Amino acid sequence: MKKWTVTLVMMLWSVWMYSAELQSPDGRFLLQFNLEDGIPVYQLSLEGQKVIDKSRLGLEIKDMKPLTGDFKLVRVDESSFDETWEPVWGEFKEIRNHYNEMAVTLKQDETERIMVVRFRLFNDGLGFRYEFPQQDSLTYFVVTDEKTQFAMTGDHTAWWIPGDYDTQEYDYTTSRLSEIRYLMKDAISPNASQTPFSDTGVQTALMMKTDDELYINLHEAALINYSCMHLELDDKNMIFEAHLTPDAIGNMAYMQTPTHTPWRTVIASKNAGDILLSNITLNLNEPCAYDDVSWIKPIKYVGVWWEMITGKSTWSYCDLPSVKLGETDYSKVTPNGRHAANTANVKKYIDFAAQHGFDQVLVEGWNIGWEDWFGKSKEYVFDFLTPYPDFHLEELRDYAKSKGVRLMMHHETSSSVRNYERHMDKAYQFMVDNNYNAVKSGYVGDIIPRGEHHYGQWMVDHYLYAVKKAAQYKIMVNAHEAVRPTGLCRTYPNLIGNESARGTEFEAFGGNKPDHTTILPFTRLIGGPMDYTPGIFEQDISKINPDNDSHANTTLARQLALYVTMYSPLQMAADLPENYNRFMDAFRFIKDVPVEWDDTKVLEAEPGDYITYARKEKGTGNWFVGRTNDEVARVSKIRLDFLEPGKKYEATIYSDAKDAHYKTNPQAYEIKQRVVTSKTKLTIKCAPGGGYAISIIEK
Amino acid sequence: MKKWTVTLVMMLWSVWMYSAELQSPDGRFLLQFNLEDGIPVYQLSLEGQKVIDKSRLGLEIKDMKPLTGDFKLVRVDESSFDETWEPVWGEFKEIRNHYNEMAVTLKQDETERIMVVRFRLFNDGLGFRYEFPQQDSLTYFVVTDEKTQFAMTGDHTAWWIPGDYDTQEYDYTTSRLSEIRYLMKDAISPNASQTPFSDTGVQTALMMKTDDELYINLHEAALINYSCMHLELDDKNMIFEAHLTPDAIGNMAYMQTPTHTPWRTVIASKNAGDILLSNITLNLNEPCAYDDVSWIKPIKYVGVWWEMITGKSTWSYCDLPSVKLGETDYSKVTPNGRHAANTANVKKYIDFAAQHGFDQVLVEGWNIGWEDWFGKSKEYVFDFLTPYPDFHLEELRDYAKSKGVRLMMHHETSSSVRNYERHMDKAYQFMVDNNYNAVKSGYVGDIIPRGEHHYGQWMVDHYLYAVKKAAQYKIMVNAHEAVRPTGLCRTYPNLIGNESARGTEFEAFGGNKPDHTTILPFTRLIGGPMDYTPGIFEQDISKINPDNDSHANTTLARQLALYVTMYSPLQMAADLPENYNRFMDAFRFIKDVPVEWDDTKVLEAEPGDYITYARKEKGTGNWFVGRTNDEVARVSKIRLDFLEPGKKYEATIYSDAKDAHYKTNPQAYEIKQRVVTSKTKLTIKCAPGGGYAISIIEK
Repeated sequence: MKKWTVTLVMMLWSVWMYSAELQSPDGRFLLQFNLEDGIPVYQLSLEGQKVIDKSRLGLEIKDMKPLTGDFKLVRVDESSFDETWEPVWGEFKEIRNHYNEMAVTLKQDETERIMVVRFRLFNDGLGFRYEFPQQDSLTYFVVTDEKTQFAMTGDHTAWWIPGDYDTQEYDYTTSRLSEIRYLMKDAISPNASQTPFSDTGVQTALMMKTDDELYINLHEAALINYSCMHLELDDKNMIFEAHLTPDAIGNMAYMQTPTHTPWRTVIASKNAGDILLSNITLNLNEPCAYDDVSWIKPIKYVGVWWEMITGKSTWSYCDLPSVKLGETDYSKVTPNGRHAANTANVKKYIDFAAQHGFDQVLVEGWNIGWEDWFGKSKEYVFDFLTPYPDFHLEELRDYAKSKGVRLMMHHETSSSVRNYERHMDKAYQFMVDNNYNAVKSGYVGDIIPRGEHHYGQWMVDHYLYAVKKAAQYKIMVNAHEAVRPTGLCRTYPNLIGNESARGTEFEAFGGNKPDHTTILPFTRLIGGPMDYTPGIFEQDISKINPDNDSHANTTLARQLALYVTMYSPLQMAADLPENYNRFMDAFRFIKDVPVEWDDTKVLEAEPGDYITYARKEKGTGNWFVGRTNDEVARVSKIRLDFLEPGKKYEATIYSDAKDAHYKTNPQAYEIKQRVVTSKTKLTIKCAPGGGYAISIIEK
Repeated sequence: MKKWTVTLVMMLWSVWMYSAELQSPDGRFLLQFNLEDGIPVYQLSLEGQKVIDKSRLGLEIKDMKPLTGDFKLVRVDESSFDETWEPVWGEFKEIRNHYNEMAVTLKQDETERIMVVRFRLFNDGLGFRYEFPQQDSLTYFVVTDEKTQFAMTGDHTAWWIPGDYDTQEYDYTTSRLSEIRYLMKDAISPNASQTPFSDTGVQTALMMKTDDELYINLHEAALINYSCMHLELDDKNMIFEAHLTPDAIGNMAYMQTPTHTPWRTVIASKNAGDILLSNITLNLNEPCAYDDVSWIKPIKYVGVWWEMITGKSTWSYCDLPSVKLGETDYSKVTPNGRHAANTANVKKYIDFAAQHGFDQVLVEGWNIGWEDWFGKSKEYVFDFLTPYPDFHLEELRDYAKSKGVRLMMHHETSSSVRNYERHMDKAYQFMVDNNYNAVKSGYVGDIIPRGEHHYGQWMVDHYLYAVKKAAQYKIMVNAHEAVRPTGLCRTYPNLIGNESARGTEFEAFGGNKPDHTTILPFTRLIGGPMDYTPGIFEQDISKINPDNDSHANTTLARQLALYVTMYSPLQMAADLPENYNRFMDAFRFIKDVPVEWDDTKVLEAEPGDYITYARKEKGTGNWFVGRTNDEVARVSKIRLDFLEPGKKYEATIYSDAKDAHYKTNPQAYEIKQRVVTSKTKLTIKCAPGGGYAISIIEK
């Protein structure tokens, strides 16, 4: 008997020493970790159904034995966490951070190196990361490849964009995983800076749906001091592997212990809305790093921008083929007569903003250097300080101030990053001295230092450097063309926006797919808000610029919806004031919709088809509903059961007219008003590329 | 007759349209320019003897037709220049800039691109550069290869170091050009950062001597906004070609018209001393860019440095294998007990400096981060602001000030260049706030951004950025491991030094060749002063650190000579105070020798064998003479005919004792005093690796 007991104990011991398990707080998710012949492997299931099949973990490192095998499991630490915290701004007044955690400590044979894999299992998904404690056998190391796998259980449907070291500005392709390689070529549309790397490479957040109608989302959280992760698909075995972004000499990341990677996240649910509402990304980031956040405030803005994007006006002041800052005498050049950022024009936007309650006016093209601003690999391209002769900065600053409006700064860097960092303190101080508190930054074109990529560790470091330094000046940052966000706005809430995806400007560059905004919240917005700059009331761009025959693939009603469906603390009414003036009744919604929320619900959601959100305005009992619809005419049926029972509300519904169509009749909308309660059910028809917006105001 | 006249005119015309000539002001040099089948070619002769044989000119540029041929000569502009100017500091009180200039304007077929080659012919040599005026057909271009040739007339003797994108810290090899490829392997000694590129690649300034005893020197002047030039030898044809330093992606330089390259220089003479005394490099640079230069003053200094170089002490405070700035708590670590930059020790150096009339005390290892300071590709390696716990900065600053001495700042960057630039303003302001006005900077290790090289355009830009920003703070810069100088100190005289060659520290790393300092003035010093840091009185390094068996290959007397032969406005007495205390009579010379001069003569010179300089102290009638001697015992015979006739002077001669030898008896010296006049002739024996120093003081 004794002998059997000993054997049993040893068997249990050896099982324990090679495996470990973790459940989510509600017990629905199960995370299993195993060492198989010394190779670390994990898998994830939801209510008994596999989400992630057996997948390997590990990293390859330069000139050292790979951290991919020959491990022993030396320790398992388990803990739980349950806290509620309040974001500085967001979709919710408060967020619950509730998970069970398991840290497995692995020790490698021969090298004695320690690698910890920390798993956190939430009620809606998993996060895990690699950690390397201070240790004698590992101090400095260079990651040459991350070997993390995400094994799919089948040929899922995916909404994807091509993996690329320099841009995310692609339309989404909807396809099976097995089709990606055949569709890649067409998916890669031209861009000012792009480096696709594989026929089966895709970006995160990646949204998928299994044939069993399980929704799976892969992304990362807290990308700090590491290289951005893409996913490369082995489409024989349906296994994704992490694919990092290399630096100029092909290395991925330079590390010094104690250190850790970002979190890799798997959000999963049978309910598509749960993916949208998940707070895993934010919860895996560190709490707010700032003591004082009183200066961080969401912003509604208009801007001197769309008229240049459409080609009606120019950023540049004159048509010289090239300029040299400090040498070109702008007072002596011939203006081209189409420079939009001139004093009189900016004043019109200020008047419009003041009249309609907008906080700020973005002005692009205010500063010298736009004549040859990209595509030249020009290092000293902007100085961020010197206005063009017709942009009377102080006069405009004061004019805006007198009307209760601020100008919004623009720092296009042209990806000349050393140049930007050299000017950054002065540029930020200049903002403070001139009543600016928010900057839209841009990184158009190939990165200088040449050889670096937009999403490598070098640039990831730079973007955060710019945000942290901005905070010293109480400045908010909206970084375009930067790496897509991974929840850093929890820790650094002055990062109020990124573009980092294909935005509204592409409606003027040939048009976005009509289902684009039914996908973005499942992908781009998983990591943080997007400055999508909606509000296009004139879809026929040739009406603005006869030389531009682009068409915005959206109805007007859907443009209103986007202020609800595309969550952002920063919202632009992007069109020209004259186009809003033509549809002032519809514009009313844009004026009314807030940018701060206490609560958020998803009423309907299917990636690529439609999304309907309802959001509660911060500090009030008002709600706003928005629906974005794909290229298929659909009927939306929603219940307003999120309203407070027993109360009456005045609802204004802005929806597609019966014959509306994003292509042929986009401006056909109707506005209806009615009283609603929590018992109300609404049935609203959505046009192809359409949608609706509803304001629900307490009576 | 008419027909012949027309033909003759047309022949003359066509000859003129394909060629042009230029003479030096004294007529001895002749520069000939030709277009041979549209290819630009030049050649240079001195008094009828060829210096540079037919050599091609041109550049290759990315994705465009090469600028190497298919040219027509459209214009030749000639001019002369003769001006005398005063340097802020230097070897002369005033310098004459006297040349004839010829600018040939070339237009390329098909592309219509304009390239100007501007030649300046001085009485001691040639400078030429490429210029690209503002033009419609050329705005932005990327240089992928420079094709400038320097065709040698034979298999000359050369004093060379291996071409390398990252270091110049090599011993010189003396050999024929044809032998370079066989000697290259042995010439490449190990270094913290090195990238040799060819078996026949060498660096400039390159010193040569023909079999006809003509001395030829090749270098460049005014290296600004371009890539550093090396020379690659075609050793079949004895033709050197420019070999630029690539960036991370293989390009050489990014240009925007109007623009120009640096000057390529050819100094030539039958007299070796003329090479040393040439001011071509300075004259080809722009005049001083600063209005106020009152804060720029030459410096004599000692330093907490040699004790670390020899290994007796450490730069680091403790022995942690790695540290993280801002996280490692230095107040809690165990000091290693060998940290040299501690308050008590620094005070000893301050006392020594004050006692002996030195201006400053360099302190290396004063700041946190030295525990893992190079070889780790660590980006956040130093903050340039935070002292170690035992370096009481304010106390030392005030202590030094009370004694009439300043501390000299040290900014080792570890080649983490973005990190340095991020801290630079604060670091410079910190200096100003703490009574520092001079900084020694360093770039040890491979450059970050990774892929860049020490001598590429990117870093050339950085070094000048650091100098120009320093001037805003009235700070002088001595940049080690930076690109070797090219005369920029005329324009930016706060650049008071560079190392950028194999210096005295290598005497403690195995020893320099005993003829090293008989070559450096012909090579490294052509472009600007070197912080050679001489003054080694104890050549047996094991006496300082028993674990270091290196030997400084020099006699003590020769160390004194170096203060005269290695011109620099920045001179260090590098050894430990205790070693000076042992030889105070010899140290007297170091105390007496000035760092500012009104005039300079070369009394004897043969590269690789010996150099004897005489220099007149600024503002006085005193003269100082120094001779550095190679590994062969020699007798030096000099006339003091540079002294003012009719005057008497007290000369103190510090020379090798009869039995002195750099290896076996380096510290055997003798000091003799005598009265001298302009008629005096001296005969002084020099030991192997020896030399002498003489102070000649007006009576």
